[in-house]
Amino acid sequence: MANAFYGQSGGVTATINATAAAVIEAVRAQPRVIEKVFVGRNGIIGALQENLVDITEESEETLAGLIHTPGAAFGSCRHKLQNPSAEHDEYQRLIEVFQAHDIRYFFYNGGGDSQDTTRKIAHAAELVGYDLTCIGIPKTIDNNLPMTDCCPGFGSAAKYVAISALEASFDVASMHQTSTKVFVMEVMGRQNGWIAAASSLACDERGLGPDIILIPEIAYDKVAFLEKVKEVVAHKGFCVVVTAEGLRDQQGHYLSYIDTVDAFGHGQLGGVAPRLVDDIKTAFHYKCHWSVCDYLQRAARHIASQTDMDQAYAVGKAAVEYAIKGLQAVMPAIIRTQSVPYQWRIEPVHISQVVGGEKNMPRHYMSKDGFSVTQAGRDYFAPLIAGEAYPPYRAGLPDYKKCRNRLVERKLPEYFGKKCIQPASEPA
Amino acid sequence: MANAFYGQSGGVTATINATAAAVIEAVRAQPRVIEKVFVGRNGIIGALQENLVDITEESEETLAGLIHTPGAAFGSCRHKLQNPSAEHDEYQRLIEVFQAHDIRYFFYNGGGDSQDTTRKIAHAAELVGYDLTCIGIPKTIDNNLPMTDCCPGFGSAAKYVAISALEASFDVASMHQTSTKVFVMEVMGRQNGWIAAASSLACDERGLGPDIILIPEIAYDKVAFLEKVKEVVAHKGFCVVVTAEGLRDQQGHYLSYIDTVDAFGHGQLGGVAPRLVDDIKTAFHYKCHWSVCDYLQRAARHIASQTDMDQAYAVGKAAVEYAIKGLQAVMPAIIRTQSVPYQWRIEPVHISQVVGGEKNMPRHYMSKDGFSVTQAGRDYFAPLIAGEAYPPYRAGLPDYKKCRNRLVERKLPEYFGKKCIQPASEPA
Repeated sequence: MANAFYGQSGGVTATINATAAAVIEAVRAQPRVIEKVFVGRNGIIGALQENLVDITEESEETLAGLIHTPGAAFGSCRHKLQNPSAEHDEYQRLIEVFQAHDIRYFFYNGGGDSQDTTRKIAHAAELVGYDLTCIGIPKTIDNNLPMTDCCPGFGSAAKYVAISALEASFDVASMHQTSTKVFVMEVMGRQNGWIAAASSLACDERGLGPDIILIPEIAYDKVAFLEKVKEVVAHKGFCVVVTAEGLRDQQGHYLSYIDTVDAFGHGQLGGVAPRLVDDIKTAFHYKCHWSVCDYLQRAARHIASQTDMDQAYAVGKAAVEYAIKGLQAVMPAIIRTQSVPYQWRIEPVHISQVVGGEKNMPRHYMSKDGFSVTQAGRDYFAPLIAGEAYPPYRAGLPDYKKCRNRLVERKLPEYFGKKCIQPASEPA
Repeated sequence: MANAFYGQSGGVTATINATAAAVIEAVRAQPRVIEKVFVGRNGIIGALQENLVDITEESEETLAGLIHTPGAAFGSCRHKLQNPSAEHDEYQRLIEVFQAHDIRYFFYNGGGDSQDTTRKIAHAAELVGYDLTCIGIPKTIDNNLPMTDCCPGFGSAAKYVAISALEASFDVASMHQTSTKVFVMEVMGRQNGWIAAASSLACDERGLGPDIILIPEIAYDKVAFLEKVKEVVAHKGFCVVVTAEGLRDQQGHYLSYIDTVDAFGHGQLGGVAPRLVDDIKTAFHYKCHWSVCDYLQRAARHIASQTDMDQAYAVGKAAVEYAIKGLQAVMPAIIRTQSVPYQWRIEPVHISQVVGGEKNMPRHYMSKDGFSVTQAGRDYFAPLIAGEAYPPYRAGLPDYKKCRNRLVERKLPEYFGKKCIQPASEPA
């Protein structure tokens, strides 16, 4: 009998709490193996600071409501651990905390950087001979983890952007004769076009949805883009553009200037849509409108995909099963066995196969001219947005739950490791 | 027996087609009074150009689906008619078209400018002695029409921004310890803060929802704003700001119209949200994120308010009833008789009482410091977002309908009035 740690890490999603709920429920279903789940307050920082959430302090109603609540119920973080082969003070501290609370199972829920955290902790535990079963759990709206067909969180973001692009196209179609000719919608995706490309699901034979999709994997060619905008406007009277925030020019420079850098060294982007609108207005004097979805697309639990919800829950449940089976340093991956009708299963993959990789969109998901998504791409995306997992409502608003996040009593002295409470470096 | 004209005008909404459906259904229910409805393709421009949609060419499925489809199904326009007492060529043309199609009922669905169109046409018909019953129908997400408690279209936009602000606050709450401290969401509202203020419904005793709301009616005070941001971040660790696009400084200048040029010589286009983020970053170096909702907020039929849907339908139905009763130059207005539980009815008001007026938010709906909404304001907004009028879905996307918009055969020569296809002059 021992306890488990669960942490949420990196940029949050509409469905990460469904994974949390699955982990908590799966542990409770195995009371003879794992006694308690301690949840890190703000992910791994909670472990470093011994800020462990006592979930027995949460009401059953709150825990049941996790499944339909966006964001990270227990707090997330962007924190890069040191390399376990160099300095060791963070790992010593982590092991001390785990030991103090008899934590022998470590579950960490996040994207690529978070899987790296799990890998490092497994390595560090091995180095000092501390018995710790480490399981990574996938989550990222970016959909860029290798070895898994898709990532929990992505399907709901994809559904949100496809619906938004569809709705915006109805709006612009209404207005174009005397007003707006071009609408540009900016979505997330620093390195990959997964989210932007998913908006293609709104395209149909009726001429709705995005006419042009711009992704980071294909360099922005201003001349070709403007030619395409002109052609679409001439043909149908208006043009809807969806662009990823990470769009780059032929020299590889982000169109949107980088003004801050996070803990992992990633620049914070924003503002490609107004840049493109600038190019279009300068060339054609069309009236344009633009939107930047930003957090709204990853927090939009109100229109979560049921497929995404099912998968977010399934990876949490599988993670606990793997731990109980004694698998080490694995991540539950989603394996697609069939697209139509959609079939999938969960399989363990070794975390070392996930870390450091970055799954770009296959080039054949995009048309030859690079502005639209092929049938192969649409076949990939379609099942991921299927089904509407509506939350319950109260007084016109989703009845999202907020955890109390009461902490368990500390057993160790305070930790003053210099890295542990510093915010991500932000030169602003 | 005669025919009716119905037109959609101005910026569109998530629920204007519910009004169209109501007008069409109400006319069909009175086959002994009004024979046919001719719908203007792009509003009044359709009448000028004799581009009249033959709704009998639309399938019953499409007409039934209008009620859950955003945008203007028949096209909208921004077109300002001449003054009927000055030149008359547009009015001569309109009367000719109405005469050619035996149109004796005129329904026009829009905001303040569209009500003005109805008033002018009623006046012009009177001047030339053409018997034409003219009814204005309210619609605007801006909620700024006088004489009506609220405007169809607003409740759904309000629901969208309240839900989005709520969801974003869950996201930022998750991330703030090591990442984003401030999130700024920009919503529509050039002159009025109705939409921005409605986001206050997301605020509750749990500290969620927007912490600061900025509206055009209250001049932006940079010092006070930054002080408030700092205070909120110090108190709860993060801050969510909702701003109306029409925010102005103490001199009355729009913040968003001030262009800046970056180091590369690229003009940074408007957008109040990035401007505010700039101020915050410069002062405090907080990591910030921002979004611009733009058209997404007024097209978001996927999360329409049931109250709004009911009212959008009711004003369309009432308009036809008023016409049949012989009322002239009136608009169905929504009269609130009680807030809790919410009760309302529809009453006719004379269009001359609506035209030219602009309903700002009452000052007492905002707190003394101008940054939050009072209980009086929340009592006003709360019933307008009640209920979720979900559209049907197909393959993960709303099953919105697109009209064929086949035109009836023309009876008149083409019209070359110089104004009729020019775009309305508008700030780009």
